Amino acid sequence: MTTTSAPALRFSQRREWASEQAIGFLMQQAVENRDCVSLAAGLVDPTTLPTEIVRETADEILADEAAARSALQYGTTPGSEPVRETLLHLLATQEGKSVEELGVGVDRLVVTTGSAQLLSIVAEMLFDPGDVCLVAAPTYFVFLGTLDGVGARAIPVETDEYGMRPDALEQTLQDLEAAGELERVKLVYLVSEFENPSGVSLAAERRPQVVELARRYSRSHRIHVLEDAAYRELRYDGEPLPSVWSHDTDHDTVILAQTFSKSFSPGLRVGFGVLPDDLVAPVIDRKGNEDFGSANFPQAVLQRAIESGRYAAHVDRLRASYRRKRDAMVAAAERHLDPLGVVRWRRPEGGLYLWIELPTHLQTGFESPLFQRASRVDGVMYVPGELCFAGDAATRRRHHARLSFGVQDESGIEEGVRRLASAIEHVLASATTGA
Amino acid sequence: MTTTSAPALRFSQRREWASEQAIGFLMQQAVENRDCVSLAAGLVDPTTLPTEIVRETADEILADEAAARSALQYGTTPGSEPVRETLLHLLATQEGKSVEELGVGVDRLVVTTGSAQLLSIVAEMLFDPGDVCLVAAPTYFVFLGTLDGVGARAIPVETDEYGMRPDALEQTLQDLEAAGELERVKLVYLVSEFENPSGVSLAAERRPQVVELARRYSRSHRIHVLEDAAYRELRYDGEPLPSVWSHDTDHDTVILAQTFSKSFSPGLRVGFGVLPDDLVAPVIDRKGNEDFGSANFPQAVLQRAIESGRYAAHVDRLRASYRRKRDAMVAAAERHLDPLGVVRWRRPEGGLYLWIELPTHLQTGFESPLFQRASRVDGVMYVPGELCFAGDAATRRRHHARLSFGVQDESGIEEGVRRLASAIEHVLASATTGA
Repeated sequence: MTTTSAPALRFSQRREWASEQAIGFLMQQAVENRDCVSLAAGLVDPTTLPTEIVRETADEILADEAAARSALQYGTTPGSEPVRETLLHLLATQEGKSVEELGVGVDRLVVTTGSAQLLSIVAEMLFDPGDVCLVAAPTYFVFLGTLDGVGARAIPVETDEYGMRPDALEQTLQDLEAAGELERVKLVYLVSEFENPSGVSLAAERRPQVVELARRYSRSHRIHVLEDAAYRELRYDGEPLPSVWSHDTDHDTVILAQTFSKSFSPGLRVGFGVLPDDLVAPVIDRKGNEDFGSANFPQAVLQRAIESGRYAAHVDRLRASYRRKRDAMVAAAERHLDPLGVVRWRRPEGGLYLWIELPTHLQTGFESPLFQRASRVDGVMYVPGELCFAGDAATRRRHHARLSFGVQDESGIEEGVRRLASAIEHVLASATTGA
Repeated sequence: MTTTSAPALRFSQRREWASEQAIGFLMQQAVENRDCVSLAAGLVDPTTLPTEIVRETADEILADEAAARSALQYGTTPGSEPVRETLLHLLATQEGKSVEELGVGVDRLVVTTGSAQLLSIVAEMLFDPGDVCLVAAPTYFVFLGTLDGVGARAIPVETDEYGMRPDALEQTLQDLEAAGELERVKLVYLVSEFENPSGVSLAAERRPQVVELARRYSRSHRIHVLEDAAYRELRYDGEPLPSVWSHDTDHDTVILAQTFSKSFSPGLRVGFGVLPDDLVAPVIDRKGNEDFGSANFPQAVLQRAIESGRYAAHVDRLRASYRRKRDAMVAAAERHLDPLGVVRWRRPEGGLYLWIELPTHLQTGFESPLFQRASRVDGVMYVPGELCFAGDAATRRRHHARLSFGVQDESGIEEGVRRLASAIEHVLASATTGA
């Protein structure tokens, strides 16, 4: 007699949409290729994590009975009011304004598990299957997976060295309107500062234009702009810019997403959103269903770090450290990639990434000769650029790569870029000789 | 000239389903009635939070460079393997087995933001709108909101003092099959230990029966059982029972959800699930989209607390403390409720709740004379039982209340129950006199 096993399970439609994130494949590759220098990992620099600050603040909180009880108890779904007050003040500082000048109160802030959770919840609350999100080309690939997960369509908008092009955005909106699809457009998503993967920031003069376009094309319903400012604190050159959100004077169009995963510690997973008034209740209700509140204890740690001034000091040190690493990658690119004569790249003014463009025929995907050669022979890993482009697989650009200077130290950066140059050189030579 | 504001936003279908959680209304009531003794709050006892343990373990982690870097860095979506190893060993201890005897490895475990996130993700992965979940009557009201949020239908199954009745479960399945609806049934949800709100545990002999029924009625597709064991460590009398999950020898039918929010600290928000093999990837993919991993730092704290034996010692102390509070509530119920002659209740062997039943005509809802009198005159708050019943509003039972002994100390418990008795007495007298 054989035991009969239970019949197959039947998933929801949602499950069918949810694709495995490419990040999983990348991590698997990292495990299988341990000798590789990884320029792929999106992790932050392990040597500049705020170990001492977290230790001191955790100690202080846990030595204070009232603070300890609040940190270790359940909180409210959007985060405690004192924590949100602190975040609002920090935001004001980042915008170069007083809290009063910001034009919103703590009731518009929601604390989330990293900014990732905010992006996901906004997608849940806005998109029905087939609805449209306009995204930069290229854009943050994890968010493309989030859009897939709710059955939304991501439509790419051309970018240049100043970020998403307003003329291209308008053209796309016009085309969609002409096709009778404007009513499916719910959101414009953009990473305003040092975009992952391109390293490009949206230029100052384009910021109000994007808001104006979203408002102008909001005919039957509102089109929101989701501004992902994850890298805003990681600026190494030039002056900080006011957010896209700050140009939305009614604060009903732009959703601002920020996180402390890059500027402090991803192990705390604290992010927050600033929301239009009528999105606050939907986002909190949804978060209530998902987890009824992110962990309090890390929020308390972060709040105390900010209030005590330790956070600002940490960000200063962090910027100095990443600036050196950015410089190391730029120097390595000049030394190893430029002599090849076929690699284009731009010096990023912030963030964690260098984005390189190869000749069109030199594909970079997981199955490409370059990725295989780089990971198996030369020993270096990168993120294939094609993951970062929305739209038809057939038309997706396949000749870019994202190189991160987050994890590697300066010599690792130099070595990684050297190895990548070697792999490119080899594949170029093979292509030329037909080998 | 007036400025034109942007047109109204258009939400997703999901948003339309998501109702405000009753918990929000309750918290608002608590704010508005600050002099009330709250027997409503589902918080844990603030005086037994593991402040010292968290302080020591956080210190140890942050003093150890490798441990600190791992705790403050990004982790993997399902939680780090060492953390999951620790949880697997703890689960084995709870089941009274060796890890080998458990029959699953760490690859079946996923760490979530409390067990709430696991419940939510399982619902996302299984339910299409209109699909059915069978739940106990009464059941955990937050999960009813989660089901609403994905458009699923919750159908109540009768319970008695031994938990969900297998005969009633089978009858419900038969009825659904006769109505051609069996193919919509995806899940049986139950709180196996000291159910919130009833305080009842599923009897030992019923545990394999529920698994057998789910398997037997899995005709065209698998029907899962979601076992919510949130209160499993909070047993004050009698011997612990192996989980429902342990009776699913193939481990393909029962999903086990556990949390450290009750037994350790809700401010860390660490829970975990043990999943059938073919649900692992869907749940991790979905979690990847939602937040790509819960905060690492609280997981590291919890792991060290478990590994060092501090967690077990804490649970022992906690049990002793809650046992005294349970006894205080039982004594108060005997002293104040029993003399009224109309209130039925059972002594809970664990958990945080006393569930009381009033005469059918004595309604307990937010709008009822009893709730109004209790909160505004006598100064006591409870959770109306009707929140905990699924099904038609018209047929929902409205004469129960959940009283928590989690937050109040022994004198608060005594005072709260005394006040509630006073409110009941007043409303009974008004009803009799027609006043």
